[in-house]
Amino acid sequence: MSDTVTAAVLVIGDEILSGRTKDRNVGYIAEYLFKAGVELREARVVPDVEDEIVAAVNALRARYDYVFTTGGIGPTHDDITSECIAAAFGVPWERQPTVWARMEAHYPPGGFNAARQRMATMPRGAVLIDTGHIAPGFSLGNVHVMAGVPFIMQLMFETLARRLQGGIPVISRSVHATGVREGDIAAGLTEVQRRYPDIDIGSYPYFREKSGSGVAIVAKGTDAPATEAAIDEVIVLFRSIGGDPVSGEPD
Amino acid sequence: MSDTVTAAVLVIGDEILSGRTKDRNVGYIAEYLFKAGVELREARVVPDVEDEIVAAVNALRARYDYVFTTGGIGPTHDDITSECIAAAFGVPWERQPTVWARMEAHYPPGGFNAARQRMATMPRGAVLIDTGHIAPGFSLGNVHVMAGVPFIMQLMFETLARRLQGGIPVISRSVHATGVREGDIAAGLTEVQRRYPDIDIGSYPYFREKSGSGVAIVAKGTDAPATEAAIDEVIVLFRSIGGDPVSGEPD
Repeated sequence: MSDTVTAAVLVIGDEILSGRTKDRNVGYIAEYLFKAGVELREARVVPDVEDEIVAAVNALRARYDYVFTTGGIGPTHDDITSECIAAAFGVPWERQPTVWARMEAHYPPGGFNAARQRMATMPRGAVLIDTGHIAPGFSLGNVHVMAGVPFIMQLMFETLARRLQGGIPVISRSVHATGVREGDIAAGLTEVQRRYPDIDIGSYPYFREKSGSGVAIVAKGTDAPATEAAIDEVIVLFRSIGGDPVSGEPD
Repeated sequence: MSDTVTAAVLVIGDEILSGRTKDRNVGYIAEYLFKAGVELREARVVPDVEDEIVAAVNALRARYDYVFTTGGIGPTHDDITSECIAAAFGVPWERQPTVWARMEAHYPPGGFNAARQRMATMPRGAVLIDTGHIAPGFSLGNVHVMAGVPFIMQLMFETLARRLQGGIPVISRSVHATGVREGDIAAGLTEVQRRYPDIDIGSYPYFREKSGSGVAIVAKGTDAPATEAAIDEVIVLFRSIGGDPVSGEPD
């Protein structure tokens, strides 16, 4: 792996595409990876359709260091992520002995039925993401397969995160000024960006009932002094057009 | 267009991938399209990088009836969606006379600066998504380009929506039962799904502080009687394992 460690998130589920469920997993994983110095480069949402899942998994795993999937690992007919991962990797989908034994012991006679047995069936070579709960997620190669329900996904992600190799941590500094409009600072901001080519400078208008509208500037980079120097220049820029810059993001 | 009208959403912006901003546009568009009978088949999030935006736009516009993009149409250096759409279509990026004239008239002398002029520059052939605000979104072919700030995006989308051709409206019926576990109904649910191959039946576990945990079943289809009959069978299924099914989604 080079210094830059990259990742993608693949959200699997009809319920996100129909609007029934609002995804919260991308935001959670994004925040975590950012702090860990892993660059999240892409996120995709695909339906519970085998060809779509397989194609997305193969496109993303070839391109990024890590792929995180969420959703589709339960026991019902619409949960097909696990067999799709096996198909994407071209490996058998078979009993996972640890999970199988654990689930068999957990349920009363007859309770470990065919549906639940599917949750104990995984691609050959899967490494468990084991939270201590009955049905774990798993990793296969660089693909990490987690539940879709946010609190379960978060438990799995925290368990998994210990195994991830981060990059150089990125730091982020920000400043905002109410009453300023993007169009009034854009030229100056382009100049700041040119002087700090290794710092990512983003401009985000905001509209708050309480504090009014304005612009927040966020600088991100692995070089802390350069990141701070870039924000210092933005502060000067805000003042040059009569703005009143305040550190950090707006409330 | 066939009876099935399909769509994709492309979210453009580093701020979503860094976790700074939580996307709310996919959920909004998804809900709207679902009601309009347009099938949202995919969503992607890409960074503010030309090659990534161009590749995603071209992949999605070739595949779906509608593509909706959000983000990256402001005046600052990180707003590059508009020129990327021109590049994706291989058309010039040039002054849009209506918007140019309007913005020129709106700002005091010197205010319609180079940065703001970028917002009045669009791919040749762009059709405005005009909300009456200063800077509109636009459509080019089947690609509809909107702002990233949710309330502006929503105004644009509502303006645009009048022009969209919907499919056959999909109806959705649901039932839930607290105390039931997915693994206990999965086999029966698979049978219901087999009997109603044209209805999409989804199973979603829930965990509520107030009402406890259970399973919600959602059936979606264009055939209302079949959708309702499928849910009736799920009600029977819930009762067969001692569940107490309640119409609709859990609170």
